[in-house]
Amino acid sequence: MPLDKITIIGVGLIGGSFAKGMKDAGLVKNVMGFGRHEEELKKGVALGVLDSYTLDMQEAVKAADIIFLAIPLGAMQSVLTQIKPFLEPHTILTDGGSAKMCVIQAAEKVFGKMPSTFIPGHPIAGKEKSGVEAADACLYQNHKVILTPAENADEQAIERVRQCWQALGADISFLTPEYHDEVLAATSHLPHLLAYALVDLLHDHPELGSVFQYTAGGFRDFTRIASSDPVMWRDIALYNKVAITKWLKNYRTEIDKLIELVETEDSEQLFEVFNGAKNARNRYIEKK
Amino acid sequence: MPLDKITIIGVGLIGGSFAKGMKDAGLVKNVMGFGRHEEELKKGVALGVLDSYTLDMQEAVKAADIIFLAIPLGAMQSVLTQIKPFLEPHTILTDGGSAKMCVIQAAEKVFGKMPSTFIPGHPIAGKEKSGVEAADACLYQNHKVILTPAENADEQAIERVRQCWQALGADISFLTPEYHDEVLAATSHLPHLLAYALVDLLHDHPELGSVFQYTAGGFRDFTRIASSDPVMWRDIALYNKVAITKWLKNYRTEIDKLIELVETEDSEQLFEVFNGAKNARNRYIEKK
Repeated sequence: MPLDKITIIGVGLIGGSFAKGMKDAGLVKNVMGFGRHEEELKKGVALGVLDSYTLDMQEAVKAADIIFLAIPLGAMQSVLTQIKPFLEPHTILTDGGSAKMCVIQAAEKVFGKMPSTFIPGHPIAGKEKSGVEAADACLYQNHKVILTPAENADEQAIERVRQCWQALGADISFLTPEYHDEVLAATSHLPHLLAYALVDLLHDHPELGSVFQYTAGGFRDFTRIASSDPVMWRDIALYNKVAITKWLKNYRTEIDKLIELVETEDSEQLFEVFNGAKNARNRYIEKK
Repeated sequence: MPLDKITIIGVGLIGGSFAKGMKDAGLVKNVMGFGRHEEELKKGVALGVLDSYTLDMQEAVKAADIIFLAIPLGAMQSVLTQIKPFLEPHTILTDGGSAKMCVIQAAEKVFGKMPSTFIPGHPIAGKEKSGVEAADACLYQNHKVILTPAENADEQAIERVRQCWQALGADISFLTPEYHDEVLAATSHLPHLLAYALVDLLHDHPELGSVFQYTAGGFRDFTRIASSDPVMWRDIALYNKVAITKWLKNYRTEIDKLIELVETEDSEQLFEVFNGAKNARNRYIEKK
């Protein structure tokens, strides 16, 4: 540190916030953006998120110390394929994808095996807003970033990626990709799908009419994540399919339990469930 | 208006906020609190939520213009039974219960038929905080209050109750109790149970370990209502049982749909569900 060049592939909220954080921290001389939409990249430069941009992958990859892939999971394989011919041995690859097994599988398909310089990552931060205008140098402050390096990963590459996230104020954890995908399916992907499901169920339901007028803050907060980017969440649902269906089914079993408790008027158990949940949430979530 | 005396039975968040709002608006000379815990009632007077309090139901009911029942659904029948011997013909009864059919049934059991001066109501407002310390004169401002008067309801009683809520800044709707219970089951009771269910499923799950450390703002907001009062929500689950089990089952069908879409990798339909939900939410919820 400081680095000469970081390339951001995909300059939206996640890539843009990483770029801006690194620039603001003075840790890199040149943050270059690569993307498909020149207008967005121009905006990135105008907003001070990027130093420069290119639409040419060879130029993007050339002499980069780190390439950060902040693209939809569905684009990983094709972007890695485009990067491969130009990739220099010293260049570190990392990403911000919300599922990790599928990214590793995409890299294995493109490179034959996981490159030792590819350190997969996942910053657990976001907003409903997307796009480079939403980029925020502080987005990752005090947020978890999970890194899932493979066994053959280069120690120096791991350390570099760790240092970048640390500079952005993140709290870094190392997990296996399998455990990452399981944990995120349960704690993030599941609630997103549940929130989408509730809005999908209720809006324009023939028996209810226009009911959102009767909702209050509880409903608004519960469904906030249903305003997230539908393309991104479609990709996550497909690319973390096994873990997500497992947790949707676990949740369905939980719903069955509640239906039974309500139908049998099991007052005591209902209280236990609600009270236990309240206490667990207050202990772990509110105190964070 | 102004009224001589309003009695609040149950001086917690809902009753206390009503009391304080009426006092602050100068609409009543004496707001008297009745409850089981003298300490709480003393606190209510000290905080300026109440003018006076009593532990004696006869004194509470005597010469009251309006009695507001802000008590758990499970306590309605027994409190109405205690009120009955002292109730004067001119006194208006109203309540803040989250379900309305069960309140009407309780009143019918106690009085033989629904008294024409009992105007059931439900302010759609709340916080996770409870108790008289959380009382807030502005709690109901710009919040929906649903009134569900019976066919035999006294027009002047309806108008009085409406005026009170209007003075607190609420937005009043009139619904049938059946439709109220259906709408609230779908838009409020269901999400509360879903939030409790998610926390119950994940905390201390043997396959996951301590996962709340990996959660972020989305999880926090989704589960915020799981920090609500477990006694109140147990009562709601039991007292709006029919509508709640119906909507839990509708939601389970929705989950089944999502499981199938993910398992069959139906990219197009997943996008449609997520995008439709996002658009509906942004149209109706974010714009409110």
